[in-house]
Amino acid sequence: VVESGASASAVEKGNYRHFMQKEIFEQPAVVANTLSSYVRPYDGKVALPDNDLDLSAIDRVTIVACGTSFYAGMVAKYWIEQFARVPVDIDVASEFRYRDPVLEKGSLALFISQSGETADTLAALEHSRACGQIIAAVVNVPTSAMAREADLLLPTHAGPEIGVASTKAFTCQLAVLAAFAANLARAKGKLSEEEEREIVKHLQEAPEAINDALGHDDDIQAMAHLVAPARDVLYLGRGPDYPLALEGALKLKEISYIHAEGYAAGEMKHGPIALIDDAVPVIVLAPSGPLFEKTVSNMQEVRARGGKIIFISDAKGLAEAGDGCVATIEMPEAHPLIQPIVYAVPVQLLAYHVAVLKGTDVDQPRNLAKSVTVE
Amino acid sequence: VVESGASASAVEKGNYRHFMQKEIFEQPAVVANTLSSYVRPYDGKVALPDNDLDLSAIDRVTIVACGTSFYAGMVAKYWIEQFARVPVDIDVASEFRYRDPVLEKGSLALFISQSGETADTLAALEHSRACGQIIAAVVNVPTSAMAREADLLLPTHAGPEIGVASTKAFTCQLAVLAAFAANLARAKGKLSEEEEREIVKHLQEAPEAINDALGHDDDIQAMAHLVAPARDVLYLGRGPDYPLALEGALKLKEISYIHAEGYAAGEMKHGPIALIDDAVPVIVLAPSGPLFEKTVSNMQEVRARGGKIIFISDAKGLAEAGDGCVATIEMPEAHPLIQPIVYAVPVQLLAYHVAVLKGTDVDQPRNLAKSVTVE
Repeated sequence: VVESGASASAVEKGNYRHFMQKEIFEQPAVVANTLSSYVRPYDGKVALPDNDLDLSAIDRVTIVACGTSFYAGMVAKYWIEQFARVPVDIDVASEFRYRDPVLEKGSLALFISQSGETADTLAALEHSRACGQIIAAVVNVPTSAMAREADLLLPTHAGPEIGVASTKAFTCQLAVLAAFAANLARAKGKLSEEEEREIVKHLQEAPEAINDALGHDDDIQAMAHLVAPARDVLYLGRGPDYPLALEGALKLKEISYIHAEGYAAGEMKHGPIALIDDAVPVIVLAPSGPLFEKTVSNMQEVRARGGKIIFISDAKGLAEAGDGCVATIEMPEAHPLIQPIVYAVPVQLLAYHVAVLKGTDVDQPRNLAKSVTVE
Repeated sequence: VVESGASASAVEKGNYRHFMQKEIFEQPAVVANTLSSYVRPYDGKVALPDNDLDLSAIDRVTIVACGTSFYAGMVAKYWIEQFARVPVDIDVASEFRYRDPVLEKGSLALFISQSGETADTLAALEHSRACGQIIAAVVNVPTSAMAREADLLLPTHAGPEIGVASTKAFTCQLAVLAAFAANLARAKGKLSEEEEREIVKHLQEAPEAINDALGHDDDIQAMAHLVAPARDVLYLGRGPDYPLALEGALKLKEISYIHAEGYAAGEMKHGPIALIDDAVPVIVLAPSGPLFEKTVSNMQEVRARGGKIIFISDAKGLAEAGDGCVATIEMPEAHPLIQPIVYAVPVQLLAYHVAVLKGTDVDQPRNLAKSVTVE
């Protein structure tokens, strides 16, 4: 959906081969642009667009979305619970609508959609309003139905997204959700002034960290031949990297038609490890930190069964566990509130280069529409 | 894990070719046996094993499990929310442990595990106890660690399960969870005496309905050749049939090494539909009822893109939408509290016959252990 008034440059490919590629490379700029509405760097404060809600009264958040936006919501669940200590329910919109969910009055229901018109998500929003929920919406089109219906509108400023497979809208959603989690944490008294200042500093670092990740484009292009011949690919992660694994798999599915699947790394041994043989590349997302060792231990189980690993981590993680992987991608070290934004980049680039190598229609993959306005 | 004291007949294959096949066919008997601890048919009441908990005080349930047991928990979430109107959080154990979840004191945390020793689930149980949760455990081994630690022990009476891919333990878990949901609904005042009597009647019908489903074994064997050559298979369902789709896909993955994936039917158009071509069989679970039309509409989208459908529904559903499917499996009509138990059977049988056709080691699939006592 292209908004009227968009500048010509935003809807032309310029020097890029595909819109998707252009949109991946726009991420440092559009994430910075988006964050500028959510932080006040001069006084070290996070902020939200004007609203008259009392965030301190919110004791529960329900997140509803579809597809890539749903995975952004899954990351937000980790952030909101960890930083604001507010419990979060999350559901895909098509399930939420029909399962007659128990909603406590006065809770916040948060909807995420690039277009702001996704049919199932919009219907879920209307159902939640009827149940007395406060409505928040993270949308990229400020004139959309969801934007109009929200009590708290949290816009992303990604600009028009033309490629059917969402990239820059996703990282902008993550940026908004990180800022929302920090705002909620402050309102709930879980963030000191010092911690808030630190978080603002780290959010400000996101565009540069994304840029750093984009610097590995050539390496990632060079390893695309490891994935392109595969029929099946698995993506593994823990914590906020679990939804990133799901999103990485979805990107590859969407544009290369390879059957990729994301898994919580700890669930592998409860079934899916039976799939592993030397024809199945396994992409592992494991930044160093508290979950690193457990994820690496799952990765070793996969390797012991012949799985070929592409390992995405930071310098420290690669030094510790990079040996024996068929390829590695080095990410900058990053704060937990921006790390998923950064790790989105290599999985986008990998899907992109694999699709180009396979010769699929990257910007218009078969069977898919940009915005799903039917149920 | 074989308990001491198990009778010889329970651990021999008898006339069956594989333990898994034997265990699938034991389901009418072991589900009946399990339910006998949870219903009092003579006075039309549901019941729980002796305990001194006040179920009416429970305002939130957190379910934690791994693999197949996790999918049983997902079904229970639908039941508990629908019948008892108590909100349910659910998480895979390996994620729950490390995400530092927000747990309200005095809530019920419910753990599901065939062996009662699954390492991640046991650690999650201990973490929840430390956070002041009331602990319930659905386990098949009454001497297990989880059984010992539970405030409310909800045993399944499936007998020893030898096949690595869980079948009868899963349906017995569902039977216990259905009874638990009904008990909680009664304690919360959401169930009239008349409704309770109805539910008891329907639960009592489960073994016969399972038996009816098993009667399609020959048909399912005859259609296994449609799935065996596939590299990729999708399973679709809505509501409680969404976790059944996940479980069906997991069974096929585990024993036939085909990359099967389950999806909420409404999520297909947000990405995975790009995978569909005429080489991808799609298994659709859609009993007639309020979700039927929406699921069938997703099925038509798949068919319009060349997908070959195996359609599992009841007589009414097959009459309405069975035309044009490459195969259909007719299930008996069933109450929402026993329907997932019944629909588990055809996806088990399909996975079994496909694996036999492929010549894999059904009872001891590669890379898998029966009970996962490491992290």
